[in-house]
Amino acid sequence: MAVNYDSQEYLKSVDAYWRAANYLSVGQLFLMSNPLLKGELKAEDVKPKPIGHWGTIVPQNFIYAHLNRAIKKYDLNMFYIEGSGHGGQVMVSNSYLDGSYTERYPEITQDEKGMAKLFKQFSFPGGVASHAAPETPGSIHEGGELGYSLSHGVGAILDNPDVIAAVEIGDGESETGPLATSWFSSKFINPIKDGAVIPILQINGFKISNPTIVSRMSDEDLTKYFEGMGWKPYFVSAYKNGEFNGYKDHMKVHQEMAKTMDEVVEEIKAIQKHARENNDDSLVKWPMIVFRVPKGWTGPKFDLDGNPIENSFRAHQIPIPVAQGDMTHKEMLTDWMESYKPEELFNEDGSPKDIVKENTLSGDQRMAMNPITNGGIDPKVLNMPDYRDFAVEFDKPGSVEKQDMAEWAKYLDKMAELNPNNFRGFGPDETKSNRLFQLLDNQKRQWMENIHTPNDENLAREGRVIDSQLSEHQDEGWLEGYVLTGRHGFFATYEAFGRVVDSMLTQHMKWLRKAKEQAWRHDYPALNLVDTSTVFQQDHNGYTHQDPGMLTHLYEKNRPDLIHEYLPADTNSLLAVSDKAFRDRECINVLVTSKQPRPQWFSIEEAKKLVDKGLGYVDWASTDKGAKPDVVFASTGTEPTIETLAAIDLLHKKFPDLKIRYINVIDVMKLMSPEKNPEAISNKEFDRLFPKGTPVIFAWHGFKSMMESIWFDRGRGKDDVHIHGYEENGDITTPFDMRVLNHIDRYNLAKEVVESVPELSEKNAAFIDEMDTLLAKHHQYIRDNGKDMPEVTDWQWEGLK
Amino acid sequence: MAVNYDSQEYLKSVDAYWRAANYLSVGQLFLMSNPLLKGELKAEDVKPKPIGHWGTIVPQNFIYAHLNRAIKKYDLNMFYIEGSGHGGQVMVSNSYLDGSYTERYPEITQDEKGMAKLFKQFSFPGGVASHAAPETPGSIHEGGELGYSLSHGVGAILDNPDVIAAVEIGDGESETGPLATSWFSSKFINPIKDGAVIPILQINGFKISNPTIVSRMSDEDLTKYFEGMGWKPYFVSAYKNGEFNGYKDHMKVHQEMAKTMDEVVEEIKAIQKHARENNDDSLVKWPMIVFRVPKGWTGPKFDLDGNPIENSFRAHQIPIPVAQGDMTHKEMLTDWMESYKPEELFNEDGSPKDIVKENTLSGDQRMAMNPITNGGIDPKVLNMPDYRDFAVEFDKPGSVEKQDMAEWAKYLDKMAELNPNNFRGFGPDETKSNRLFQLLDNQKRQWMENIHTPNDENLAREGRVIDSQLSEHQDEGWLEGYVLTGRHGFFATYEAFGRVVDSMLTQHMKWLRKAKEQAWRHDYPALNLVDTSTVFQQDHNGYTHQDPGMLTHLYEKNRPDLIHEYLPADTNSLLAVSDKAFRDRECINVLVTSKQPRPQWFSIEEAKKLVDKGLGYVDWASTDKGAKPDVVFASTGTEPTIETLAAIDLLHKKFPDLKIRYINVIDVMKLMSPEKNPEAISNKEFDRLFPKGTPVIFAWHGFKSMMESIWFDRGRGKDDVHIHGYEENGDITTPFDMRVLNHIDRYNLAKEVVESVPELSEKNAAFIDEMDTLLAKHHQYIRDNGKDMPEVTDWQWEGLK
Ligand SMILES: Cc1ncc(C[n+]2csc(CCOP(=O)(O)OP(=O)(O)O)c2C)c(N)n1
Ligand SMILES: Cc1ncc(C[n+]2csc(CCOP(=O)(O)OP(=O)(O)O)c2C)c(N)n1
Ligand SMILES: [Mg+2]
Ligand SMILES: [Mg+2]
Repeated sequence: MAVNYDSQEYLKSVDAYWRAANYLSVGQLFLMSNPLLKGELKAEDVKPKPIGHWGTIVPQNFIYAHLNRAIKKYDLNMFYIEGSGHGGQVMVSNSYLDGSYTERYPEITQDEKGMAKLFKQFSFPGGVASHAAPETPGSIHEGGELGYSLSHGVGAILDNPDVIAAVEIGDGESETGPLATSWFSSKFINPIKDGAVIPILQINGFKISNPTIVSRMSDEDLTKYFEGMGWKPYFVSAYKNGEFNGYKDHMKVHQEMAKTMDEVVEEIKAIQKHARENNDDSLVKWPMIVFRVPKGWTGPKFDLDGNPIENSFRAHQIPIPVAQGDMTHKEMLTDWMESYKPEELFNEDGSPKDIVKENTLSGDQRMAMNPITNGGIDPKVLNMPDYRDFAVEFDKPGSVEKQDMAEWAKYLDKMAELNPNNFRGFGPDETKSNRLFQLLDNQKRQWMENIHTPNDENLAREGRVIDSQLSEHQDEGWLEGYVLTGRHGFFATYEAFGRVVDSMLTQHMKWLRKAKEQAWRHDYPALNLVDTSTVFQQDHNGYTHQDPGMLTHLYEKNRPDLIHEYLPADTNSLLAVSDKAFRDRECINVLVTSKQPRPQWFSIEEAKKLVDKGLGYVDWASTDKGAKPDVVFASTGTEPTIETLAAIDLLHKKFPDLKIRYINVIDVMKLMSPEKNPEAISNKEFDRLFPKGTPVIFAWHGFKSMMESIWFDRGRGKDDVHIHGYEENGDITTPFDMRVLNHIDRYNLAKEVVESVPELSEKNAAFIDEMDTLLAKHHQYIRDNGKDMPEVTDWQWEGLK
Repeated sequence: MAVNYDSQEYLKSVDAYWRAANYLSVGQLFLMSNPLLKGELKAEDVKPKPIGHWGTIVPQNFIYAHLNRAIKKYDLNMFYIEGSGHGGQVMVSNSYLDGSYTERYPEITQDEKGMAKLFKQFSFPGGVASHAAPETPGSIHEGGELGYSLSHGVGAILDNPDVIAAVEIGDGESETGPLATSWFSSKFINPIKDGAVIPILQINGFKISNPTIVSRMSDEDLTKYFEGMGWKPYFVSAYKNGEFNGYKDHMKVHQEMAKTMDEVVEEIKAIQKHARENNDDSLVKWPMIVFRVPKGWTGPKFDLDGNPIENSFRAHQIPIPVAQGDMTHKEMLTDWMESYKPEELFNEDGSPKDIVKENTLSGDQRMAMNPITNGGIDPKVLNMPDYRDFAVEFDKPGSVEKQDMAEWAKYLDKMAELNPNNFRGFGPDETKSNRLFQLLDNQKRQWMENIHTPNDENLAREGRVIDSQLSEHQDEGWLEGYVLTGRHGFFATYEAFGRVVDSMLTQHMKWLRKAKEQAWRHDYPALNLVDTSTVFQQDHNGYTHQDPGMLTHLYEKNRPDLIHEYLPADTNSLLAVSDKAFRDRECINVLVTSKQPRPQWFSIEEAKKLVDKGLGYVDWASTDKGAKPDVVFASTGTEPTIETLAAIDLLHKKFPDLKIRYINVIDVMKLMSPEKNPEAISNKEFDRLFPKGTPVIFAWHGFKSMMESIWFDRGRGKDDVHIHGYEENGDITTPFDMRVLNHIDRYNLAKEVVESVPELSEKNAAFIDEMDTLLAKHHQYIRDNGKDMPEVTDWQWEGLK
């Protein structure tokens, strides 16, 4: 018999379901045993230190209950993102009710004993997090750091045409920059090829200790705000008209929410049907829901001083003073829990009653079990092009100039062609500036607003690149949503402005780390961050655009299993790196790449070898064959490598007997001590490559302190290695001067050798003086001529004799 | 005779002024000599590599010209912020025309020779930046990293009731998170006590290689968007009605802009008059301007392939291929420059003609000379309370528990009381959570929306705290604007989420650095970042809320003159630190502080001594008096210090003869090598405090790599020091377990001593086993009881015998 989901009777089961979720959510905050409150509540039943959040819970449980109803009524493929992730109980309680929690964690049974365990483990040492963390079934968004819920939801539904992401957004969260700009996501969702999001803004009026901005805005202003940005807002309110503190009867709110959900879902279906049947992918005004509801709804009304809790910031965390050591007001807790009428909701044995179960789903339709939240709906490894097909060919190192990113674009174009539904590139309006020409020309960038060719270029309704919003937050957020749902891609950004999303990368790493600990979680494709327009390529923009610190930022977390940092010095190395990076799983790869025309050094075979090992001896740039080196050079990345080779050239011509060794480092984590990175080269090998007692000149792309820490861990000190790196010096100046300002240029590197190799120290004065003369000449030359000296620009690697 | 600013004649001078600014702006991009194009343009007149941006220039010059007119007409106190800071010529050209540039840089005279220099120096080695950098007169906002223009403008006008900040915002910039949420600034501007901003959104339609989102939105949608957020938008358009590529006559646009500017200024004046005369500080709908205008307006129309430049992304940077080595199309440049009719604008000698000068101002009314842009209108040092009045008193170390932040609030409250117009605190809804109770109670938080007491708390129309928007970007941006205009304050945030604004802090440091190099720039009060709710105090929120990496992030820049990092371990140290921090100038101070109840260690005199020196020997926690120590302990910050003292206690009881030295470190930069930080302690002193050959156990608050780099620079290695720090381990767990997880707890510290002091190594096995037993006991205890073991929570420092 078909269920009438619109009947008052069905709404009563929604209400029962909701109350059950509420009951469980309060229980998790306070109790360790006696979950059904059988007999009197004793001190030992209560947690010593209740920890967690209350205010956001009940509105979210309400939303969840109604999403369940909508999934049933319309047979939807839907999942849930909780923006206010600090309401960790929401997803726990709801997944417990539909059995998914027990499927994931069999010891948490759907009975009194299991319920006690469920309660105790929450926010408890050795238990589960107070946020929607990776251990939470159905979560792809922890919501610890607020602001990314909508970006994540949108990333998840790209190329998932049948999925709807129900994205709950906190009204406090909506005040963050990342969230405020993520409303523009609607300009990028293709109604044919992509799925849909339903943003559900939970205006509960308060944050930690403040009201929220949107809550004090009128419905009229909110309508303008959202309509202006291209959404169609639907309002549901739990408040009696015009009252600040008066609420509607719950059943009335159920009716209104059910009706609104229906409208929204039907509208999405109609939009998609129309678009797909008519192949009409024009810009859509997607529906969204604004839910006005008191923070701490249904909870304790007043604190001991008579101040309101419900509908106040005071509902944010633990709202009442009840704990194992403080049982004076225990009836505040029991009254509260009993207000949900648990006897109507749970059987004597603690299992949920039928009236509750009526509003649950089964199988993969349960939001907590939707495969999209666990590795993706139909995750596929990438169909990889052969990177060797894109290799740059040359006779001898340095004889050919290429732009690594422009070459790489050809490979990416092929990658996108081979993976038309599960590979995407993101960028903040920089993809062309970053020279990914062929990728743009062939794959286009997705953009649903009007297109005016030829004023516009490479825009299309559907495209593998999304780079038409200037927001690093959106790029990173979308990509995270995309890879967390089993797809592949990269985010290419100016190196300095990658730092705008430092904390997002941290949060993604934290997610990966904890997700790995869950046996039931499938793994995720790597998140690839491409840092280009690097610190030494800022002759166009100068000092504000210089910052290689992403390397340290991720390195210092000391999780080389989750973080890889690659600094390929030419196209072939970049190709070999990407073959590895795009196959990799469950990690963040940072690729530091060059976009300017630069000499090419390594054959594709050499490059592959370097990447496999992470670093290596470069035969054609070394003169120590069969001998102990007098000096070892090492370099990472484009400019450090050019300058190192130029210094080697210079030294070799001047001191033909000097035994020079050159090591190129691509995978910098391989230098870490094996204690910290089991994948690193051994101490023995490290000391073989960089023999103790032989000066090492290390031309490093990043800030020095990171490289110092690496050498420290290897038990080596400042007498062993001379690190040249970025010194936070910059300006609008020439490419070579950028290097000079940071003492990473050939002249300064060569000086360092002569100063540190004992056998050369007698010849010091004249050579050092010669280098200083060249540096002075350079200084004046660029000021007079606005370009680098011919001896610098014309320099070519000629090979060693 | 009164000038009629509304006359067509006057608008002609505005137009002439504008054309002159445009001419100068193009000249700066391309020319090195022959600035007035006398005779034929030769290759040597042109820059070898023209660098800079074009597309944003002419619309901004237009705005600037009309702001000049409005200042004259209404006698305003106004300054300019260019959001699209990459149009560096804008502020250079305009300040050159009114003579301010020459006042700042006397060699850049207002004649042909000066103009040649002006042109050559722009974006040229040894010259000036291509952005609105600190060397640019009138700039307080470089705009290299986009997104902060409005936050900066609002920060600047707080407590400056007579000032108007004209804030130009790029349409691309408006897509960033920080900018998108900064529109909510209007909810915090008090019309009586604060000044006003005029946001001027320059919708030029394009970014680097994309259209902009707002440009494709209709006027109707934009109106909704801005009205929704509480602004009153006025539109000015350079486009002919309904045409995508058709433009109005310039004089018509002048008329429309003049009229709109007048309306906006009059509206602001009326709002302020009303508010001030009636003491009515209710929420205001502030006017703003939306200026639709083609990118690259008045510039080259088509490129060599026939693609549009004007009104296209192609206008973004250098739009035509003319350079010293590429003169084929030189008439593209000369035609362009001559289209401004320089002969009408400049005299034969290169000085601006009267018609141009008519629209300039003089003295401090010139936007480039407004004192607010150079250290503030009436900058005052703080009236400082005596920090000693707030000292915590106790008989012996560890006998009293206090919450450092709650104590500190009393001091801050007094500070605010003594400085009612030039001291402010900012926070992202965390000020109460961060325990600044008394500051909130007495000083209130500023909030212009409705207030509903008692659901709300401590809100007021005027308050010294602004923390009612959940946005770290706004806090940091407002505070930057506030200190860059000569006022004082702090931004207190959860340590982990301070990382949300990593890149803003970098940009502020870069600004300070370059500003210092300008002799004419006054200095700025310190920017104080208070990182609290730190990594080891996350028992409430867990792993996502743990990140002490701000310390490394700022340290690695290696600018200890600009960056100070303080980790006071108790209230008195915090007070002594703040006495220093709030007096400091031209730097970023990071204060890592504790908010939980914790034992108090140092008398106020001890604390003062520690802060003066930055670190020091702690007599009452050391047993090495008159002897060489067997082991040296060092610690920074609250938890590392508690655990270190507990370990010392434990060891002392067990091994009474062990000679222990304890060093408390507050100012961590003092540990840097003196080569890098001349203010650091000498190598001699370092080696005296931490003698070579004696194991050092360093309990460090941050990531290890930073401390490793410090020791590396001191020439010391991993055999010398055992660094315990944050290891990126966390969870919802007990306070002590957070420390155990990261091996910074007393038991692990004590183990490390026994393992590394040779004389103890025989006794190793038993003691190590005892520690391991305690750790195992702890592990189980917290899982059973949800709280720390009594021996941990009850531990008290009893003093050494
Ligand atoms: C970026 C960031 N800044 C600050 C915080 C600290 N914080 C945690 S919860 C919260 C308030 C959230 O309010 P809201 O989004 O309205 O959630 P709800 O009312 O549903 O709890 C804040 C400021 C955070 N988690 N993330
Ligand atoms: C945070 C950040 N991301 C990326 C960039 C690179 N960038 C420089 S200019 C620009 C486009 C700016 O467009 P818009 O704001 O419209 O300025 P305008 O059109 O006036 O030049 C971009 C993306 C940047 N400067 N800052
Ligand atoms: Mg809220
Ligand atoms: Mg623009």
